[in-house]
Amino acid sequence: MNNNSRSQNTSLGIVGFGAFGQLAARHLGQHFKVSAYDPSPGLASVAKQLGVPLASLRSVSQADVILIAAPVSSFEQVVSEIAIACKPGALIVDVGSVKVGPAEIMRRLLPKHVDIIATHPLFGPQSAINGIEGLKIAICPIQGKQHVRLAAFLRNALGLTVIMTTPEDHDREAAVVQGLTHLIAKVLLRMGPLPTRMTTKSFDLLSEAISMVQHDAPEVFEAIEKANPYAGVVRRRFFDLATSMSVELESALRTSPHNKTGQ
Amino acid sequence: MNNNSRSQNTSLGIVGFGAFGQLAARHLGQHFKVSAYDPSPGLASVAKQLGVPLASLRSVSQADVILIAAPVSSFEQVVSEIAIACKPGALIVDVGSVKVGPAEIMRRLLPKHVDIIATHPLFGPQSAINGIEGLKIAICPIQGKQHVRLAAFLRNALGLTVIMTTPEDHDREAAVVQGLTHLIAKVLLRMGPLPTRMTTKSFDLLSEAISMVQHDAPEVFEAIEKANPYAGVVRRRFFDLATSMSVELESALRTSPHNKTGQ
Repeated sequence: MNNNSRSQNTSLGIVGFGAFGQLAARHLGQHFKVSAYDPSPGLASVAKQLGVPLASLRSVSQADVILIAAPVSSFEQVVSEIAIACKPGALIVDVGSVKVGPAEIMRRLLPKHVDIIATHPLFGPQSAINGIEGLKIAICPIQGKQHVRLAAFLRNALGLTVIMTTPEDHDREAAVVQGLTHLIAKVLLRMGPLPTRMTTKSFDLLSEAISMVQHDAPEVFEAIEKANPYAGVVRRRFFDLATSMSVELESALRTSPHNKTGQ
Repeated sequence: MNNNSRSQNTSLGIVGFGAFGQLAARHLGQHFKVSAYDPSPGLASVAKQLGVPLASLRSVSQADVILIAAPVSSFEQVVSEIAIACKPGALIVDVGSVKVGPAEIMRRLLPKHVDIIATHPLFGPQSAINGIEGLKIAICPIQGKQHVRLAAFLRNALGLTVIMTTPEDHDREAAVVQGLTHLIAKVLLRMGPLPTRMTTKSFDLLSEAISMVQHDAPEVFEAIEKANPYAGVVRRRFFDLATSMSVELESALRTSPHNKTGQ
């Protein structure tokens, strides 16, 4: 594995060929010999279009680098199957939105002879629509030393901004970042179609933020809220602050003289 | 008054030389002979810098066009003083965030021989920092026919996007647009400093939206929440939806098996 780009001889096995797995194949195809595994039907044509052969989990798990982009519900099962098939010296990387739980699972189930890096690309197909240069990725080294070279590759070959962190620090910050974005988006979506005509710049930004996450799979929201150990605190704080603000406002507006003008 | 630009001989009196009055002077100085009135001390140097003479309310009220950018608290008083001093055929325009109340006050207090247009520029000094071209302004004709020429001027000379509407339609839509932006900003500001490192694109947009309104004068929020007749419904709906979502989430997360992985 070189710093700037890898030889087409390095094999990359993508486990889970959904929206993110396909995005990864699109950007990593020129750097690796890519294959992918996914149990879902109907992926043949997109795989063909991307030039990625679909293979069994066992076969994909024998790659030099294994990228786990599997859904939350099958993560532990998938890791235990990779654990049996992977070869010594392999690099195993996951890409989930939450890091404490998956890092613990990978550390517990994978053999000592592989390197493990937990990552969270802070983007998805929606934000990567104009390319991934300058986008952010959080990296948590779990086992082995390959994170140094991976970080250099992500910076130099893909142009990503790399944030080195730990699963705990990641989840603490992501609980606020993703927790709040999704909570606000969910509340606003329930308010019905938002205005688009008489809008301010700040409201347009708010609408854009919401539209970026509103098509996320329900599992993403569930993962953020359920699997991030810090999500509950952030969620309850948000709702508590909203409630106390509501009470304050209603009482302030009741007691003060009604003012019919506005600026 | 020409369609494309006005002669320097048309006089414009700005009543209220705060942040918005100054912004107006900056963009209208080349089209009008501008003077301004403001009872606050300490405005001499900014007025000088903008080349705008400060004058009495009585003198400013004798202009061909009077722009009322006064704070909510003095709006009715200011309009009643303008009513005495303004000349026949004058055009009187306000620029507040709420339109039903101010339109009613202007219609009630101003003489029949002037034209009245209630407007809401959907921007402020913050969003106009890179110029005003393409920004939006809502216009509600209240009395007379000068709105046709005003709209043409705003479009052609200033490059604004003009939205013709009524005070009621404006306030109904603004209650959602401005009400939600300010409510969300206020709740998030109470959460403390927001993360800036491990952020997603959607969270960055959210943060930007908040930073645009967080320095608004407290009167702006008060005006939106108190003076917009539709604000209460929007506010209560937002808080009710937040509360019911909180209850739903807590119960869903309690009953379902804890899933420690995330994607």
